[in-house]
Amino acid sequence: MVKVSVAGVRGFTGEELLRILSRHPFVEIKHLFSREKGLRVGDIYPWFKSEILTENISAKAIGDTDVVFLCLPHTESAPVAAKFLSAGKRVVDLSADFRLKSAADYKNVYGVRHPCPSYLAKAVYGLTEFRRDELKDAQLVANPGCYPTAVLIAVLPAVIKGLATATDIIADAKSGVSGAGRKLSNELLFSNVYENARAYQVARHRHRSEIEQEIFLVSGRRPVLTFVPHLIPQKRGIIATVYLKTKARVKDDFAAAVYGKFYRGEKFVSVLPAGRQPATAEVIGTNDVRLGVAVDARSNILIVTSVIDNLIKGASGQAVQNMNIMFGFDEAAGLA
Amino acid sequence: MVKVSVAGVRGFTGEELLRILSRHPFVEIKHLFSREKGLRVGDIYPWFKSEILTENISAKAIGDTDVVFLCLPHTESAPVAAKFLSAGKRVVDLSADFRLKSAADYKNVYGVRHPCPSYLAKAVYGLTEFRRDELKDAQLVANPGCYPTAVLIAVLPAVIKGLATATDIIADAKSGVSGAGRKLSNELLFSNVYENARAYQVARHRHRSEIEQEIFLVSGRRPVLTFVPHLIPQKRGIIATVYLKTKARVKDDFAAAVYGKFYRGEKFVSVLPAGRQPATAEVIGTNDVRLGVAVDARSNILIVTSVIDNLIKGASGQAVQNMNIMFGFDEAAGLA
Amino acid sequence: MVKVSVAGVRGFTGEELLRILSRHPFVEIKHLFSREKGLRVGDIYPWFKSEILTENISAKAIGDTDVVFLCLPHTESAPVAAKFLSAGKRVVDLSADFRLKSAADYKNVYGVRHPCPSYLAKAVYGLTEFRRDELKDAQLVANPGCYPTAVLIAVLPAVIKGLATATDIIADAKSGVSGAGRKLSNELLFSNVYENARAYQVARHRHRSEIEQEIFLVSGRRPVLTFVPHLIPQKRGIIATVYLKTKARVKDDFAAAVYGKFYRGEKFVSVLPAGRQPATAEVIGTNDVRLGVAVDARSNILIVTSVIDNLIKGASGQAVQNMNIMFGFDEAAGLA
Amino acid sequence: MVKVSVAGVRGFTGEELLRILSRHPFVEIKHLFSREKGLRVGDIYPWFKSEILTENISAKAIGDTDVVFLCLPHTESAPVAAKFLSAGKRVVDLSADFRLKSAADYKNVYGVRHPCPSYLAKAVYGLTEFRRDELKDAQLVANPGCYPTAVLIAVLPAVIKGLATATDIIADAKSGVSGAGRKLSNELLFSNVYENARAYQVARHRHRSEIEQEIFLVSGRRPVLTFVPHLIPQKRGIIATVYLKTKARVKDDFAAAVYGKFYRGEKFVSVLPAGRQPATAEVIGTNDVRLGVAVDARSNILIVTSVIDNLIKGASGQAVQNMNIMFGFDEAAGLA
Repeated sequence: MVKVSVAGVRGFTGEELLRILSRHPFVEIKHLFSREKGLRVGDIYPWFKSEILTENISAKAIGDTDVVFLCLPHTESAPVAAKFLSAGKRVVDLSADFRLKSAADYKNVYGVRHPCPSYLAKAVYGLTEFRRDELKDAQLVANPGCYPTAVLIAVLPAVIKGLATATDIIADAKSGVSGAGRKLSNELLFSNVYENARAYQVARHRHRSEIEQEIFLVSGRRPVLTFVPHLIPQKRGIIATVYLKTKARVKDDFAAAVYGKFYRGEKFVSVLPAGRQPATAEVIGTNDVRLGVAVDARSNILIVTSVIDNLIKGASGQAVQNMNIMFGFDEAAGLA
Repeated sequence: MVKVSVAGVRGFTGEELLRILSRHPFVEIKHLFSREKGLRVGDIYPWFKSEILTENISAKAIGDTDVVFLCLPHTESAPVAAKFLSAGKRVVDLSADFRLKSAADYKNVYGVRHPCPSYLAKAVYGLTEFRRDELKDAQLVANPGCYPTAVLIAVLPAVIKGLATATDIIADAKSGVSGAGRKLSNELLFSNVYENARAYQVARHRHRSEIEQEIFLVSGRRPVLTFVPHLIPQKRGIIATVYLKTKARVKDDFAAAVYGKFYRGEKFVSVLPAGRQPATAEVIGTNDVRLGVAVDARSNILIVTSVIDNLIKGASGQAVQNMNIMFGFDEAAGLA
Repeated sequence: MVKVSVAGVRGFTGEELLRILSRHPFVEIKHLFSREKGLRVGDIYPWFKSEILTENISAKAIGDTDVVFLCLPHTESAPVAAKFLSAGKRVVDLSADFRLKSAADYKNVYGVRHPCPSYLAKAVYGLTEFRRDELKDAQLVANPGCYPTAVLIAVLPAVIKGLATATDIIADAKSGVSGAGRKLSNELLFSNVYENARAYQVARHRHRSEIEQEIFLVSGRRPVLTFVPHLIPQKRGIIATVYLKTKARVKDDFAAAVYGKFYRGEKFVSVLPAGRQPATAEVIGTNDVRLGVAVDARSNILIVTSVIDNLIKGASGQAVQNMNIMFGFDEAAGLA
Repeated sequence: MVKVSVAGVRGFTGEELLRILSRHPFVEIKHLFSREKGLRVGDIYPWFKSEILTENISAKAIGDTDVVFLCLPHTESAPVAAKFLSAGKRVVDLSADFRLKSAADYKNVYGVRHPCPSYLAKAVYGLTEFRRDELKDAQLVANPGCYPTAVLIAVLPAVIKGLATATDIIADAKSGVSGAGRKLSNELLFSNVYENARAYQVARHRHRSEIEQEIFLVSGRRPVLTFVPHLIPQKRGIIATVYLKTKARVKDDFAAAVYGKFYRGEKFVSVLPAGRQPATAEVIGTNDVRLGVAVDARSNILIVTSVIDNLIKGASGQAVQNMNIMFGFDEAAGLA
């Protein structure tokens, strides 16, 4: 049994992580950290049938932890990670703090100086299907954002296999509102979300940099991505519709076959036959990604749709998938 | 008072049309046609406080009608239109039957021979803001589809004003399910729509031809459009996100100003300042179109988002707007 | 044209009131009052195509008003009403300030001293169908709450006609969240409302007193009501299911006939045949009440279900219906 | 490992059952029966990562099964049960076929003659918390309906402990639409469910008999129940609000304490402190029941609200809970 602790259990990500960890066959939940100590987490989440109380981070608790999951806001997460890392512990960080490789990019994108730049080089970007070797020995995993997970899994095969150029990518993503967390804001009121859809942060969402960095690191090609996220009236689920310029005339079937072959053997990624499209409901509650592949014969645009549960493959599920690799467990342990 | 009749009142489009017509100051509803005669429409729609009964189409009823609105399926609509046209009456057809100019295109797109090709030349495509002059004297109006309305109003200013090329247009549209009508299908069950989103008819939806034809006719430029519709869990509303390749480096503000100037004076089209995005809820229940304009400085892609109520500006509201022009009424009569 | 002003336009009630008034044939909207002056209301509500700006209440504006609608929180509303009343103007108050007849009850129920008890006697409780005579000459109308409207219209015929006792009434009401207004609270977040239902303020909701008072005043019988409101995941609509103990064995058909006869001729109340049940969607966007009547033969309980749009018949629509009577207009003017 | 088979996997109940069984530590799924054989269930439910195919029921498959779960329509279920029972196998029947003790009642309520009345006496009504002793050795379990589960758990403590009479019970229940299954009907279309609520089968729903029978069998008191179900716009979840007449003046706290004591030690039933109310979202995805207890001091009505996930505690979860008892497993195995 691996001794697991979690910091930040009150958000959607922390809640979903607890749900997964509490069913995981090889995990013992040791410490739940919060600024407010002494809360019975079972009172917050009635399904969590445990008497465990929240506590502050202490040297003793760090010592008693094999791996900590951080579900904290960016800039708050990095200093906590540093405490565990310097004690020789392993960290899966679900915030954005260690996703970008360069402190300058972090400053640019998040508008603040990086709190612990010395650990940036150490971090492995936890897009599991593309980083297994590095994850095995990783001490620090930067768990990907929800949009980057959906978009990258749709984009990378085409770029790596040379089906499409990296320089003309458009990603039009639609997300349920849990992606925005539990904060009290006017835009998240039922009355403003229900029967409503809108684009936001058009072409200036923070996840663009993360996606472009990973396309470059994995494929060696410099991408240009136009990224437009939308909020749609559902709680969970992302569907990303990605438009790529093909290098040559390509047929639906061929493109679907390239994708199918690329992800053959993956437990959590499935590629539908050409002509079929995935729906977000098919993946809710699972760590799955499902891809639909089509080519527009008149424009030579390759269209890949990608659906995930933003809280699972887009956050806590992928975090546990990464932990499974770090500790040599079956990659699907606790996730089926 | 203009004497108005309606054929096909049981679908969403017919229902919304009745709602608008029953409040219209210059309209007298004369006949409601249905195969099943003798139905009290007020029993179907409790808000319709009228004793009017459905009836079959008769020479007498045709004679007693100034303009008929057809809310019928394609191929069923054209023969009914022909009856009224040959009696010298005016017709606003909300089906697809007279939207495409060529019978060959119709065959291609709809898979059947056109029932009345001789009237195709007569039909005016009722995208009001672009066809006012022709609408004044039109005897037959082909009312645009819901997706084409949202997409064309977003695309045309850029193409006409030379901001963007016509050959690299991507339209990613998201629609509530009322667009699919009231038919009994598995895909429209609450359990399959709620908390679910998916793409459908990717790059092969029938509305693509209609959009491309109108771009060409209005701008003189041959377009290539990639069109991907999605179903999202709401009843009403379309948001179309359109991606266009700019011809030169263009700034947000400039593009928004071009659009603002283009639609200046339009009662039903508004352009938001650069940086702001419209939401579908803002137009539900109205005949309005709202546009958000942005440019991605890194990719030089112009991004226009367009929201409409698919049943009003996307169908019955625009139909009444067109009727207002045909009869010389204030264009907004009954629509405010 | 009656000169109408409105105080409090930013809540759901104020918004819906503006929508109705802006279509009303005999109304001229003169002043929109707000603490924050100079707001263009058309910026808040895009459908409101008017250049009118908010302003503070002034003697000049009061002088320029025939009737003012108050969409203000309780305790804030009464002092504003007093200003208009003392200037001889007419007032329709949508708050709870003048609904209870006794200042002591107000203190009990709302926990604060009544701000202007001297006007309590003057106020006419605006449950239109039961108060038409008094409304004609009313200077001050206390517009009923949304729950009381739905419950009273279901309860009163049985009590007045002696079908059921007044002392064993249970009202189980289910409401969409717009009833709770636009306030920023955790309970109104999309994530906490969607796919969720709960009871609240069980047997201690403020509307109980208002309902009991009106049953007594209208029927002369002292009622005992158990009232349990629930929040269900919709934006608009209330369904109240009312359980009454019949005095004798009564059949479905008979009970439905008594109700049907009671409301015969009412434009906004319809009684379905026994065996049929109304649905909230049938009244959304209308000022209608629809009633379903059934009797449980084994328990001799009369079950009446009542559906309304909480923002229209439950608030702004009934307010306009009352104004129509006050000024001698057709009762349905602006409401069809 | 117990060898489990399932008949009827295409409905919501069958789907949820598979989800639970596929995670159950002591279960091996052996056979999935369907009229249409050879279907890969993993194609229907992408999350079901198994190559298992549907098959017809055969002597061999019966021989190879320890316990079969039947998720079939009533009247179809009983004959299948008979096959397994006569082969000495154990059966958990999720249909209504063995819930009523008398074939005459079955005829009355379901309108058809009971297919296999000889097994009625053998069946144990599987309301787990009240039937543990009988369940241990049961060969045939009649799994309760969703409404009866929610209502009985709310009603029984008051009746058994003498807090309230059994003869004046009103149960007002609100359910998500998955309770109605996956059938293709107009009433289950998104457009007819969304933003809509209605009562149905008022005072004549089939579950009333089942509830009254169990109250009598467990408490020895002859009940009279008025039962009114409602459909609300959510997919899962039932909230039942139960009104009981107290025998004496009782306070909130006392009633809540009686309930709390009654269910002390139950893993799946929790009683909230007086003044707090449960919400359906708190139990979705779990086998939990949560109860809120209040007393209306003016009417002496005890109000108990009860929330469950209709597909889990109201169907498949309780079925597995019962199986756990039948086979001597931890009652919560596979359900946490």
